Amino acid sequence: MAIAWVGVDWGTSNLRAWGLGPNGTVEASASSEKGMGKLTREQFPWALTEVLGQLPLPDAPLEVVICGMAGARQGWLEAPYLETPTDLGALGAGAVHPAMPDGNIRVSILPGVCQTQGGENVMRGEETQLLGLASLSSAYSGLVCMPGTHSKWARLEGTRIVSFSTAMTGEMFELLKSHSVLRHSMNGPLDGPAQDEGFVEGARDGLDNPAGLLGQLFKIRAASLLSGKTPDWCAGYLSGLLIGTEIAANRNQIGADPVPLIGSGALCALYMRVLNMAGASGRLVDSTEVVLAGLKAARASIS
Amino acid sequence: MAIAWVGVDWGTSNLRAWGLGPNGTVEASASSEKGMGKLTREQFPWALTEVLGQLPLPDAPLEVVICGMAGARQGWLEAPYLETPTDLGALGAGAVHPAMPDGNIRVSILPGVCQTQGGENVMRGEETQLLGLASLSSAYSGLVCMPGTHSKWARLEGTRIVSFSTAMTGEMFELLKSHSVLRHSMNGPLDGPAQDEGFVEGARDGLDNPAGLLGQLFKIRAASLLSGKTPDWCAGYLSGLLIGTEIAANRNQIGADPVPLIGSGALCALYMRVLNMAGASGRLVDSTEVVLAGLKAARASIS
Repeated sequence: MAIAWVGVDWGTSNLRAWGLGPNGTVEASASSEKGMGKLTREQFPWALTEVLGQLPLPDAPLEVVICGMAGARQGWLEAPYLETPTDLGALGAGAVHPAMPDGNIRVSILPGVCQTQGGENVMRGEETQLLGLASLSSAYSGLVCMPGTHSKWARLEGTRIVSFSTAMTGEMFELLKSHSVLRHSMNGPLDGPAQDEGFVEGARDGLDNPAGLLGQLFKIRAASLLSGKTPDWCAGYLSGLLIGTEIAANRNQIGADPVPLIGSGALCALYMRVLNMAGASGRLVDSTEVVLAGLKAARASIS
Repeated sequence: MAIAWVGVDWGTSNLRAWGLGPNGTVEASASSEKGMGKLTREQFPWALTEVLGQLPLPDAPLEVVICGMAGARQGWLEAPYLETPTDLGALGAGAVHPAMPDGNIRVSILPGVCQTQGGENVMRGEETQLLGLASLSSAYSGLVCMPGTHSKWARLEGTRIVSFSTAMTGEMFELLKSHSVLRHSMNGPLDGPAQDEGFVEGARDGLDNPAGLLGQLFKIRAASLLSGKTPDWCAGYLSGLLIGTEIAANRNQIGADPVPLIGSGALCALYMRVLNMAGASGRLVDSTEVVLAGLKAARASIS
């Protein structure tokens, strides 16, 4: 099947590109380490050209649809944010079109979404996944959780994003594990048999007392000094405590439907477990599937 | 007046020593950068000898009373923790006595305090300040707040410590300011005119929603992107948010009496302000005064 257009998810640290058939099937894919954070403005067209060179493209005009950090102010060309509440069906209409050396290639960069009322916030990339989720499960209304370095929690009503928040959970885990006094308690293998026990205890503490995070963190240090807790227990506890605290902060917005979880499978499985401990439930969503569905849905409204 | 004994506060990064008269007046003082974290076990006697060399000591047997990290397991000689609840009047009785090259010098290292019930926790050094506070204001019962890298909140009943907790507030501020994505928003002068406005807004957000810390932190990034908030505003907000969150987590344990605040004057003034915003009050306590009073009180019970 011939490639009809190319979809790209351009993140801060890398990018992924898919060659897609007319009906949106993946015909080929490519990736590169040239994320937004490593490029000057002038380097973007060449980084894209390089990635396109890995795909078996037809000898004809080509359409490329990009979501993510390429549209940031410090990226290729700023794609101004849509503002919540907004219908993500308008994503394509907000696209910007930077020039390519090859005039046969038309690039569209999709906007991110910002929020100014009810807590200032920004996203770039997740909005396309949310549009994809909405187009695959059009009836869904409720919270969506996107675990990661900066976890997003968005309230969807069909293709409409009502509001969202960002929790710095993943980044906090890395900071505390590598740079804080707690690193002394995690100096050794972190994936040992006590990791699970620590995770459950941390998640319980986070769910029970999310306001006490700054105090509960130090329990890791004390437990390693007083009870000889091992590095794997401590790493599990830290992970559980942070995820439990994050979920508790969103708990009263979670309804009876399973919360869609979009992100890495291993991380989403941890969130699903803590959602269950909190008396809620989750369902795993394939993140590649929703980003592709989102690029396809957005493409239909590019003018 | 001749020096009758020497009191030492031996921290992780430095140490302070005071030459004291028979009634506890300061006759001379000295300090050194040779904190516990920079010394091997064998280097402690020499580091102390060096500091004592800066004091005009009498030519007679000398007593040295030390509190703090010299008594940690990785310090000079481990002084096993007293366990809460406990009477700090017993601090001296728990001292250990490492040998000095000069047999005329008798060293006593005071124990720290640990907690195993109601949240594992540890302190080394603060217990001596608490004993000092109790001996200066013997009628006080209630919470004591010791702001710092790892803030301690202790419940005292006279000289008795009932329980305590530790909040990693100061360390979290440094980590987030220097190592997280928020550093991009604090790249510039941090003590500008907008710092105060940011501090008040952050403190209010922390007091109102302490369970939302992981989410509220990201507001700094969004506010700098969307509203052009300056580095000084962002630094103020981060400081206020963390202190507000810490105080909110302890709010329901704070009574009508002003909370004694032991720590650096500038930091304690910020805590006092947020206590006021929370409808409580604080009073500044001189930290050198209480550590000296604590060393003196502990000395009386060394056997």
